[in-house]
Amino acid sequence: MKSRTPDSEADGWETVSSRTCFEDGNLTVVIEEMRSPARRDPRLWTVVRRKGAVVVAPITSEGKLILIRQERIPIRAAIWEVPAGQIDGEFETNLDEIAAVALRELREETGFELSEGGDLIPLGDYFTSPGFTDERGYFFLARPVRECASGHSRDESESILDCRAFSPEELRGMIANNEIRDANTLAICARLLACGFLSFGQG
Amino acid sequence: MKSRTPDSEADGWETVSSRTCFEDGNLTVVIEEMRSPARRDPRLWTVVRRKGAVVVAPITSEGKLILIRQERIPIRAAIWEVPAGQIDGEFETNLDEIAAVALRELREETGFELSEGGDLIPLGDYFTSPGFTDERGYFFLARPVRECASGHSRDESESILDCRAFSPEELRGMIANNEIRDANTLAICARLLACGFLSFGQG
Repeated sequence: MKSRTPDSEADGWETVSSRTCFEDGNLTVVIEEMRSPARRDPRLWTVVRRKGAVVVAPITSEGKLILIRQERIPIRAAIWEVPAGQIDGEFETNLDEIAAVALRELREETGFELSEGGDLIPLGDYFTSPGFTDERGYFFLARPVRECASGHSRDESESILDCRAFSPEELRGMIANNEIRDANTLAICARLLACGFLSFGQG
Repeated sequence: MKSRTPDSEADGWETVSSRTCFEDGNLTVVIEEMRSPARRDPRLWTVVRRKGAVVVAPITSEGKLILIRQERIPIRAAIWEVPAGQIDGEFETNLDEIAAVALRELREETGFELSEGGDLIPLGDYFTSPGFTDERGYFFLARPVRECASGHSRDESESILDCRAFSPEELRGMIANNEIRDANTLAICARLLACGFLSFGQG
């Protein structure tokens, strides 16, 4: 797994200047003056730096996808989405460590865990909005999953209202009718469909 | 189309306090103290406010999807993605105005336009990272599209390196092998697949 090297001068990306404008525990806003491989005249860009995150598709032995319903303050709404969570601590350079975060978030947010003999399959990564942020999500398929004896252990700062299993046909309907509408869930579904781990059947 | 009412006290969302920490023409960082329908104890949250955007899937009469290859400063990389652009000016409350932005961005970024008798089909919206930003993308399918006589007219601030048409099978391979890895493109593909406007065929 490649580490992020935001200040690397390799490959024609060159930081001419960089000024931190805001920083708290959640994000950092930097105004950067950058040269790129195709544009040697420096451009100013406002960038929001964020920790990476894990994004997990938990699929049961019946082929259903587990979603949580979560309140999201920035959009003033509760939405159905796959479990996910930020990668704390060190930079995300080690896929084994990231996988451990994925299993922890799965258990904490849904109360599900990998079944004995189940697999946690890395499915690459993605950028949530590369026009303004370096935020990156690391995709995992967890299958099959089963309910933990101990249940979930949700973080106090979260607000998870519900957790349910949805069939591929239900999922397809929720995506088509705009009920599923966050990047994590839509993007991991695209990856699952492209990799043959999920099928919407014949239209 | 519902307008965003970030300070609405309706439906149990209540802003207890709000402090703007950073603002430029690209984004605004606000620390909000919010009550939500499920959590009456106020929580502090750092929110990045951004303009909405259009996200367009242009499909040719041969069923190919037009992608652009664009340098993205925040991630230090050039990636293949669908054309997209921010909605300037007024709040995005009028779907006709948003559709006009979609057609303009399509033409500017790709040099393609709707064929005579072609359709611009709204496909709902999505949130790029609702854990920290209200940024919302409005999806459109444009089909069939054809090359403009006048070509593209790219913005000076952008850095678009290439533009090509990809078959559904090529697209599927690029999503599966992590070559397509931005939220806009993955998410609109999930919506297109769920709505039956795109098919990856049998795995």
